[in-house]
Amino acid sequence: MDQRIRDHAEVLVDWSARIDAGDDVVLRVGEGAHELGVAVARALGEREANLLATYDSDELTRAYLRAHDGEFDTDPDYQRELYERADSVLSLRGTRNTSATADVPDERRQAYAQARQGIREARLDTDWVSTVHPTRAMAQQAGMSVEAYREFVYDAVLRDWESLAEEMAQLKEILDEGSEVRIRKEGDATDLTMFIDGRTAVNSTASVADDSHNLPSGEVFTAPYDTAGQVVFDVPMTIRGTRVEGVRLVFKDGVVVDWEAEAGGEVIAAILDTDGGAKRLGELGVGMNRGIDRSTGQILFDEKMYGTVHLALGRAYDACLPDGDSGNDSAVHVDLITDMRQDGTTIEVDGEVIQRDGTFQWEHDRR
Amino acid sequence: MDQRIRDHAEVLVDWSARIDAGDDVVLRVGEGAHELGVAVARALGEREANLLATYDSDELTRAYLRAHDGEFDTDPDYQRELYERADSVLSLRGTRNTSATADVPDERRQAYAQARQGIREARLDTDWVSTVHPTRAMAQQAGMSVEAYREFVYDAVLRDWESLAEEMAQLKEILDEGSEVRIRKEGDATDLTMFIDGRTAVNSTASVADDSHNLPSGEVFTAPYDTAGQVVFDVPMTIRGTRVEGVRLVFKDGVVVDWEAEAGGEVIAAILDTDGGAKRLGELGVGMNRGIDRSTGQILFDEKMYGTVHLALGRAYDACLPDGDSGNDSAVHVDLITDMRQDGTTIEVDGEVIQRDGTFQWEHDRR
Repeated sequence: MDQRIRDHAEVLVDWSARIDAGDDVVLRVGEGAHELGVAVARALGEREANLLATYDSDELTRAYLRAHDGEFDTDPDYQRELYERADSVLSLRGTRNTSATADVPDERRQAYAQARQGIREARLDTDWVSTVHPTRAMAQQAGMSVEAYREFVYDAVLRDWESLAEEMAQLKEILDEGSEVRIRKEGDATDLTMFIDGRTAVNSTASVADDSHNLPSGEVFTAPYDTAGQVVFDVPMTIRGTRVEGVRLVFKDGVVVDWEAEAGGEVIAAILDTDGGAKRLGELGVGMNRGIDRSTGQILFDEKMYGTVHLALGRAYDACLPDGDSGNDSAVHVDLITDMRQDGTTIEVDGEVIQRDGTFQWEHDRR
Repeated sequence: MDQRIRDHAEVLVDWSARIDAGDDVVLRVGEGAHELGVAVARALGEREANLLATYDSDELTRAYLRAHDGEFDTDPDYQRELYERADSVLSLRGTRNTSATADVPDERRQAYAQARQGIREARLDTDWVSTVHPTRAMAQQAGMSVEAYREFVYDAVLRDWESLAEEMAQLKEILDEGSEVRIRKEGDATDLTMFIDGRTAVNSTASVADDSHNLPSGEVFTAPYDTAGQVVFDVPMTIRGTRVEGVRLVFKDGVVVDWEAEAGGEVIAAILDTDGGAKRLGELGVGMNRGIDRSTGQILFDEKMYGTVHLALGRAYDACLPDGDSGNDSAVHVDLITDMRQDGTTIEVDGEVIQRDGTFQWEHDRR
């Protein structure tokens, strides 16, 4: 077995999920994630955790959902109890076809999710972690060979998480103490100001110890308000199955007042049209994972890319808000990414440059 | 998808497991049983049953067991509850390597099984059914091409079970009313007499409705006693990983008093040595599945072969015994098979021939 798969399993079980002896673990094995499943089973055995493996197959789900009449039982208790009693749920995603469920009608899918909300909540109440085993299908979606994609994924996953968490803590401190963030790029017309006063930044360290549940992670994010100015998102993305490129948003008093897109404008229009909150920002995130050096069209990786900033239209995360403050609310949360690794770009907090040309000030200082 | 896989799923869900709308189903998907899993998921969706798929992977189990120190938690309740609350457990066996767990130490395996006895009992308390998806590994074990093996498996599984159940009922009636069974073969020295008076025959129809839990099935069995005479088992088998051929047992007053084997004698010796009950018969079974016309070294198929009789050394099944009678008891239950499809062979009950040369009397009568 590829040593990297074993290392991935170790990071997942120790750093991310903090598994101890006697923990009741549900291991959700994706159709293409068998090898990682074997490595994680080994790691769980070594740590004397208890193991139940479920089969997280897109093709089984498709067959079941298409055949069903759509009137699903609400939270069958044999399943809800499983998650309610589990300590940890580890999801090894790894599909063999990223379009495997493309022909399941949307309303069937929604009805199923709706009927299983209690199961989902029970699962999210555990120390859950979601990670990705690199499959051919996902390499294809990223436009990469499987060998190159594996290298990419393991570069992102096999970090020195402890030292990255320390570095991220520096940015969190700056954002927690700051009031105003300004991002500027000389290359395009980006010059955007946001307020973050009173908001709390979250260190997304890929560990349940920091309430961070995705491996890889590596971003610091907060919930901005009163956004003004304009921003160009130059990292291409796939949103709702459509390629979206060169989106420019213009904000006034926190609201999008003008916009354009080089490609995928209809998707942006639909998003902005969702509700009032969809025209405001819910998230300002700073990518800090040095293992991620290119966009692959998979948001969980792209938004962690070192030297990028992402802004999300829509819902803010509760963890960033003071108690009792509901923050920006919306049915959507859509991330858009801008690349800061260019000459003449800066992130400023209260007038002080904290990142220039994609490099943090503390790195410049160190040189 | 191969239509036979769909048909297999339908037989499993309707005839064998009798799944109804709202049933809580655990689907255990073997590593190589993905395709059957998809077909069963579809059938469960159509019947509006609830579905949780578990991943029954030999390779995960091996990795977990080898890494574990062997002190397993007893019946972790998140797992026991799952089976206690489930209505049906469908096991789709289908390994990709029949030796996948060969290097797990026996005592580790036993300790694991021991620690999970409550989970196992909860599972056996459901309407459970175990079936087999034909994989390359299993074809190889049977010494067959995968295409030929698939045909073999589907011939065994895709029967007219209702009419077979009716035919089997005829034999059950004869055995239930009979006192003495005698099997004779001219070709070898087989001439064996057993008593079955007071014992109840079981129709193994591959349906939970008849308390029969394996698909395929197709045998009628009872619990004999006071065996006398000798019998030669001419169907080669693999027992405890060893090839066993040409076993001859001599009985007196119900006990093996002499024996020999052309191959695998050390295994037979070890079995007979287990305990007192291992030297007596626990089962007399008559294979009635016409789809099974050759031995493949897989006992679940071999013992159902039409025109064969199997006798088991060791433990008797409770279902065959009068209430309060414990029958033959032993730590083992090892089936041995003799082929009756030869000139000059007979099964007699109370002196009346019920099968001659591998053909039941009611078939002769019909001709």
